[in-house]
Amino acid sequence: MITLSSDFGSPYPAAMKGVALQRTDARLVDVSHEFPRQDVRAAAFWLREILPYFPPATHLVVVDPGVGTDRAAIAIEAGDHVLVGPDNGVLLPAARELASAADDAEAATSAEANAIRVHEIGYENAESSTFHGRDVFAPAAAAVHESWDADRTVPDAVDGLGDVTPTDEFVDLELPEPAIEGDAVRGEVLVVDDFGNAITNVPGYVLDGLDEVRVDGRAVPAVETFAEVPEGQWLATVGSHGNVELDVNRGRGDEAFGLEAGDSVRLKL
Amino acid sequence: MITLSSDFGSPYPAAMKGVALQRTDARLVDVSHEFPRQDVRAAAFWLREILPYFPPATHLVVVDPGVGTDRAAIAIEAGDHVLVGPDNGVLLPAARELASAADDAEAATSAEANAIRVHEIGYENAESSTFHGRDVFAPAAAAVHESWDADRTVPDAVDGLGDVTPTDEFVDLELPEPAIEGDAVRGEVLVVDDFGNAITNVPGYVLDGLDEVRVDGRAVPAVETFAEVPEGQWLATVGSHGNVELDVNRGRGDEAFGLEAGDSVRLKL
Amino acid sequence: MITLSSDFGSPYPAAMKGVALQRTDARLVDVSHEFPRQDVRAAAFWLREILPYFPPATHLVVVDPGVGTDRAAIAIEAGDHVLVGPDNGVLLPAARELASAADDAEAATSAEANAIRVHEIGYENAESSTFHGRDVFAPAAAAVHESWDADRTVPDAVDGLGDVTPTDEFVDLELPEPAIEGDAVRGEVLVVDDFGNAITNVPGYVLDGLDEVRVDGRAVPAVETFAEVPEGQWLATVGSHGNVELDVNRGRGDEAFGLEAGDSVRLKL
Repeated sequence: MITLSSDFGSPYPAAMKGVALQRTDARLVDVSHEFPRQDVRAAAFWLREILPYFPPATHLVVVDPGVGTDRAAIAIEAGDHVLVGPDNGVLLPAARELASAADDAEAATSAEANAIRVHEIGYENAESSTFHGRDVFAPAAAAVHESWDADRTVPDAVDGLGDVTPTDEFVDLELPEPAIEGDAVRGEVLVVDDFGNAITNVPGYVLDGLDEVRVDGRAVPAVETFAEVPEGQWLATVGSHGNVELDVNRGRGDEAFGLEAGDSVRLKL
Repeated sequence: MITLSSDFGSPYPAAMKGVALQRTDARLVDVSHEFPRQDVRAAAFWLREILPYFPPATHLVVVDPGVGTDRAAIAIEAGDHVLVGPDNGVLLPAARELASAADDAEAATSAEANAIRVHEIGYENAESSTFHGRDVFAPAAAAVHESWDADRTVPDAVDGLGDVTPTDEFVDLELPEPAIEGDAVRGEVLVVDDFGNAITNVPGYVLDGLDEVRVDGRAVPAVETFAEVPEGQWLATVGSHGNVELDVNRGRGDEAFGLEAGDSVRLKL
Repeated sequence: MITLSSDFGSPYPAAMKGVALQRTDARLVDVSHEFPRQDVRAAAFWLREILPYFPPATHLVVVDPGVGTDRAAIAIEAGDHVLVGPDNGVLLPAARELASAADDAEAATSAEANAIRVHEIGYENAESSTFHGRDVFAPAAAAVHESWDADRTVPDAVDGLGDVTPTDEFVDLELPEPAIEGDAVRGEVLVVDDFGNAITNVPGYVLDGLDEVRVDGRAVPAVETFAEVPEGQWLATVGSHGNVELDVNRGRGDEAFGLEAGDSVRLKL
């Protein structure tokens, strides 16, 4: 199975699928091609939240503001999964989560169990410098999938692209941590979803036992489900990802709270 | 085969797919994840129009304004199909249509032939109360599919969720009927499609033999195909679903007629 | 494998998939259902650019402003591929490209090698006149796929529709050619992609060796990759399709240049 994620919209993902299907019979599953354009951090967040729900797979990710520069292409082994994409950090939070989940599952006894292993994929023979999704990452993902699916290895080379070599150098990315001091929390909106939920980096436990929280100075009910407040009412809740999110029952939280991805937000518990 | 329908946009449906693929190798086919947000009636209409074109399948539907309340999760047997979703009526018009089509096909001799059978799916062990699509309906659909595909039965329980029990209590939903008195029809716009066609609940036969119809007082050509009128011309026609729809050739009927889903509309034949 | 392309948005493509899956177990791959509405030329361009990346397949295409008129339904043999859609030219540029690629690949010795073969698909028994995607093209594509996949033939008839007969009469479409005289080029914007890149019909070689080009009188850097200019900077580059495109690094070229599909554009090299 190969999952596909990008910020391409339509129809460019189809070219990636065609290229992959020239090289593999794998099942293809779209995660999203509507990730916020060139927003590496937002994609990293979504991938970390969604990929762990998949069975072992190859995850092809192309959110790549650096296309055409000499940023590397990489593959990352993470538990039973392998990720393929640009070396800009977008794969890292998901890779760590996948490796760590494997670790938990196996009650690992070695310190290396949840390690990730990064490989650089050479692409000096790529056809174009403007559409690496089609000309680098799709053929790489197909080759990695064939090898991974057969025996959980990453291939030594990708036909028509170049060699694949282990590396310790890669661009890391950690999603920002909130500052929690007593009852004061300073967090950040990581993404706004299609429902208008403003999803923060603040862990859900801060709302434990609270009926109300102040958000940027305004008192807002802290609830378990949207349905606890009337339609149109602002609320803070713990989303399916375990973080605090700010929303409006049957409305858009981002608009009501005046928040977008990257904005900081103060909570008073 | 499992079809997936929701009002989730992107990327939440991918989490549902991952969960399902942990549990089944079934083919997954998206019906739509762009149903009008939390509009149970619009989704019910589209499902009734589209699902009967599929071969026998499990249909997973999540349009669920009541997520987080104690509304039940249900599975409905309907002919060779089975539907899984929230107990808010969204499944009912499609279930009846599927059961009735099976009835027609089999020239049934028993009164029960086109009956639907409803089962409640317990989910007291669900992981979250905010994302039932991922944590309740996707695992339920996978379990139902495995059982249905094997021998046309619904399972007694879903691993990790709870028991599945037959029930006679469920939320019903019937799409509104038009009032037809002589040449005066009072109907309603059920949905507006992506082309801007305002699709009403008025059966197409009312246009039989007519060249013109008055829509909210305005004379409009009644035609068989858009191409019969010039570009930009308003028209009434019988859509692929068999209902009267109001449109503009190469334009948007909803904007021209000033109609949206839920609006009433008067036709004078 | 059947690929699906249309301007239908959502959820109408699902009805086509259901119909196809009643008749075949083929893998279904969406190319796009977001092609610009009723823009035959834009779809023809995208299909020509994308379909050659696929392995041998049946390509179902429904961009069909003439639905409901008596325009024919056709199937075109092109190399190892076959295309099914309306007889309005939308299939032709892709068909020629696929036939020509097959020719190249086989180092053909006969003049017929890259010929396309067109067949008319009768549909006098179609269920509706308003949704040919569902009632004509989907069943036709499924039948053509089954036959093509088995032995690279087109069937003599489609069950429930009508006969399939070879024809020499079909609507042709050639994408417009630019006028290149010395250092003056008059081209045209063929499509604008989701990133806002204005993709012209001007072949990329005209930029060879240039650092700058005048676009409608304005000096613009000619670069190999977006990353060569600062964010927000206008640029001309050669896109992945080999044509000149006009864009803004991390911005929208169509808005900056004031261009949309169909607009003419003057380049001074």
